[in-house]
Amino acid sequence: MKQSLAYRLDDIAKRLGGTVLGGHDVIINQVSTLENAQSHQIAFLANSKYRSQLSKTQAGAVILSAADADATNLPRIVCSNPYAAFAKVSTLLNPSLQPVAGIHPTAVVGEGVIIHPGVQIDANVVIGDGAQIGANSIIMSGCSIGAGVHIGENALLYPRVVVYHDCVLGNNLIAHSGVVIGADGFGLAMEEGRWVKIPQIGRVIIGDDVEIGANTTIDRGALDDTVIEDDVKLDNQIQIAHNVRIGAHTAIAGCVGIAGSTTIGRYCRIGGSAGILGHLQIADEVEISSFTLVGKSIKERGSYCGIFPFTTTQAWRKNAAQVKHLDELADRVKLLEQQIEILKK
Amino acid sequence: MKQSLAYRLDDIAKRLGGTVLGGHDVIINQVSTLENAQSHQIAFLANSKYRSQLSKTQAGAVILSAADADATNLPRIVCSNPYAAFAKVSTLLNPSLQPVAGIHPTAVVGEGVIIHPGVQIDANVVIGDGAQIGANSIIMSGCSIGAGVHIGENALLYPRVVVYHDCVLGNNLIAHSGVVIGADGFGLAMEEGRWVKIPQIGRVIIGDDVEIGANTTIDRGALDDTVIEDDVKLDNQIQIAHNVRIGAHTAIAGCVGIAGSTTIGRYCRIGGSAGILGHLQIADEVEISSFTLVGKSIKERGSYCGIFPFTTTQAWRKNAAQVKHLDELADRVKLLEQQIEILKK
Amino acid sequence: MKQSLAYRLDDIAKRLGGTVLGGHDVIINQVSTLENAQSHQIAFLANSKYRSQLSKTQAGAVILSAADADATNLPRIVCSNPYAAFAKVSTLLNPSLQPVAGIHPTAVVGEGVIIHPGVQIDANVVIGDGAQIGANSIIMSGCSIGAGVHIGENALLYPRVVVYHDCVLGNNLIAHSGVVIGADGFGLAMEEGRWVKIPQIGRVIIGDDVEIGANTTIDRGALDDTVIEDDVKLDNQIQIAHNVRIGAHTAIAGCVGIAGSTTIGRYCRIGGSAGILGHLQIADEVEISSFTLVGKSIKERGSYCGIFPFTTTQAWRKNAAQVKHLDELADRVKLLEQQIEILKK
Repeated sequence: MKQSLAYRLDDIAKRLGGTVLGGHDVIINQVSTLENAQSHQIAFLANSKYRSQLSKTQAGAVILSAADADATNLPRIVCSNPYAAFAKVSTLLNPSLQPVAGIHPTAVVGEGVIIHPGVQIDANVVIGDGAQIGANSIIMSGCSIGAGVHIGENALLYPRVVVYHDCVLGNNLIAHSGVVIGADGFGLAMEEGRWVKIPQIGRVIIGDDVEIGANTTIDRGALDDTVIEDDVKLDNQIQIAHNVRIGAHTAIAGCVGIAGSTTIGRYCRIGGSAGILGHLQIADEVEISSFTLVGKSIKERGSYCGIFPFTTTQAWRKNAAQVKHLDELADRVKLLEQQIEILKK
Repeated sequence: MKQSLAYRLDDIAKRLGGTVLGGHDVIINQVSTLENAQSHQIAFLANSKYRSQLSKTQAGAVILSAADADATNLPRIVCSNPYAAFAKVSTLLNPSLQPVAGIHPTAVVGEGVIIHPGVQIDANVVIGDGAQIGANSIIMSGCSIGAGVHIGENALLYPRVVVYHDCVLGNNLIAHSGVVIGADGFGLAMEEGRWVKIPQIGRVIIGDDVEIGANTTIDRGALDDTVIEDDVKLDNQIQIAHNVRIGAHTAIAGCVGIAGSTTIGRYCRIGGSAGILGHLQIADEVEISSFTLVGKSIKERGSYCGIFPFTTTQAWRKNAAQVKHLDELADRVKLLEQQIEILKK
Repeated sequence: MKQSLAYRLDDIAKRLGGTVLGGHDVIINQVSTLENAQSHQIAFLANSKYRSQLSKTQAGAVILSAADADATNLPRIVCSNPYAAFAKVSTLLNPSLQPVAGIHPTAVVGEGVIIHPGVQIDANVVIGDGAQIGANSIIMSGCSIGAGVHIGENALLYPRVVVYHDCVLGNNLIAHSGVVIGADGFGLAMEEGRWVKIPQIGRVIIGDDVEIGANTTIDRGALDDTVIEDDVKLDNQIQIAHNVRIGAHTAIAGCVGIAGSTTIGRYCRIGGSAGILGHLQIADEVEISSFTLVGKSIKERGSYCGIFPFTTTQAWRKNAAQVKHLDELADRVKLLEQQIEILKK
């Protein structure tokens, strides 16, 4: 773990809010879990059902809600949203990377590129003609930035991110290694038994405060653009097809696939390995379970699911065999109902 | 969007076929959707059900079928396959990249490498001993081409494609960023409680006119080769295991996984996130829905599906609970049928 | 295929065990399948049900079990575990890569890096400050090794692997191209309508003898570490979230996703495209079928499954429609049972 800073508990609360109870002067230099925290570390309790861990923790301080404030005598910060407060304390103690301005001599920079002040360009980065990189951004080793790409301020691209030509990325972007932004969408027409490729002439447009996980891919639009709005958070290995639009503040877990031209609302949450077919509209504040395929538009906020429940393989075999005859079973039940009616008469 | 060329509508039809009605001289410099097209852009109508969009479009011209030819007075090209015609018009207006011959000084080229005329090798490309790159190919920045690899003519490898040693790639290949061709298949034997690795000594052989999407992986064969036939189109994040064979003209959408030694026929279409188990045979012209796991061979052409239908999570909970007792439910229905028979007597 | 070595059948058995029957002196220079083997190649029969292939094979020798020893007169090695024996013969004939010690002049090596003897560092590799690379390891072109990373002995990193700062990788690691180790886990807190990022300050710790397939991603821990124990084998395109622990000797097929803080036991086998939700405990020796989502902890060894069985799309439509009314169908059956009871009285 990296060397971290240290603060008095009172100073932490002054910067980030919340009320201190117990030891105002305890020195905190790192965050940890209740289970593993040591005397100069701060932990958090976000869910009252884990209260019992408070009695055993070695933490120097804890962050908790008013409801749990009396459950311990440890030095503590009481606040309304302990998990968010913990995130901010952790950010205070583990500040994000700051750029060391400069362009590594092995970087290859095209013509007409505009690199704003304070930008850090690492080894073996390749930047195409006419690209622009906003102030204080960090482009780590081996990234490939296509011609005409615009990257905002304070962007952080980890090693080996690829951005194809003409894409536009907002401020505060974090893109992890292996991300590919702007590859061609999957557009094909069949003619006389062979595929004809449809040129993908749209771009990818990404708003501010977006994070994109390792090896996630976002395809450029076929004609219009693919759009990722502000504060969208994408986990690893997600596939976003051409002309998708993802609404602001939506969070998507790993391995999700979203097919072409689908629009997803704001504040949605999509579970891991879920899928959404193409040309659909998903409303705001929709929650989709892991492993669920959404095959038609969702017009109302709420929680949606479609998972085959797992069991022992032995039990599954029997049940799955019946799934294949479910329509017939329903017919048999209907017939039974008719026969019962006759018998009752 | 990139600067595009411009043509008279008549000239477009002369090059690509179809009959011009209305303004023969309208100048077209880009393709677009009916919804967003402007006066020098051409749009298309491939499906009569979207006819109503014709009345509102600002397009300078449209491409449509004979059946829809009278649905507008706009300048138009009438042809038998509007979608394929549109693809070709778009290619005319947005021609594919042409190589700028030369090897970037930062590229590292091994011994005995044969680079044919007109090839473009970009920055930081690494090419192993004895590799061959066919005429007019483009190898973009940071690609790694293993020893003994053969790449055909007119290939286009986007940044950071990796091809392991001895693989053979055909003409007109397009491989997007993050593609890995020829990594070891997943071959293991268990002995005395530990895994023994089985060397993967086959290759990957890829035919002509294949496109491979971003971050897709194709493993080399264990003993024999993994084979991708001509005109196969692979979307992003697909996993193709060792010794798979994919028949010509088959198209596979994103996130599909195909397990080892499976053979897929010609002209198949496989939906996103579907899976096919190992050692299976899939016939020609088979269509597999998104999210479907194919667990046994398919001998007849046709459309196949296995998706748990999604609902609200509340409804799902009730139905999923019953899925676990479906075998028992079927038994109860059978018993009811017997009892009814007795009562009827 | 690469040039291979050659051995007398007797010499192979002396090195690797087993009893030779038939031609002790036959020269073997490669492994192959029964179907495609030639006269200097050795094949194997691991399953008696393929015995009929013995009569047709052109192999110079075969490896088989005592139970099948009399099924052919071909020169043969009889042993208890033919598949593992075959793996070892193949390794003998196709030895793993040996490093050519040296650091390519295009590699960029940070301060305080310790590179042990015999290590091969290829072109365009970037190594951060304070990293350590164990003896006889091979780091292929374009890899990015973060600051403070420790890599064990005999590691083999194929081109363009990325390891983020401070991760610890054991001996004999094989990591294929596109692997990303140690990217940030997906940790977010919602506050006043915006996401707050939770710094991911744990590491990834990987034991000895681990293999990681192409484009697989393993996230660093949020607070504690993500841990992959000894002899774990991971196929391509797997996503392992923060704070997961995978027990020794577990093998996971392609495209699997494992959510955060889940612990998987030893000697588990997980099928392709399966998923495991977060914060679960999976016992030792658990087998999970392909395409199965595990939504709660598994306490007993055994085989588990949850797949919607595929059929023709036509049949699926009818059955899937009933799945949505299964709870209602169960209620109707219950009602029928009650009515039958009344009628019987």
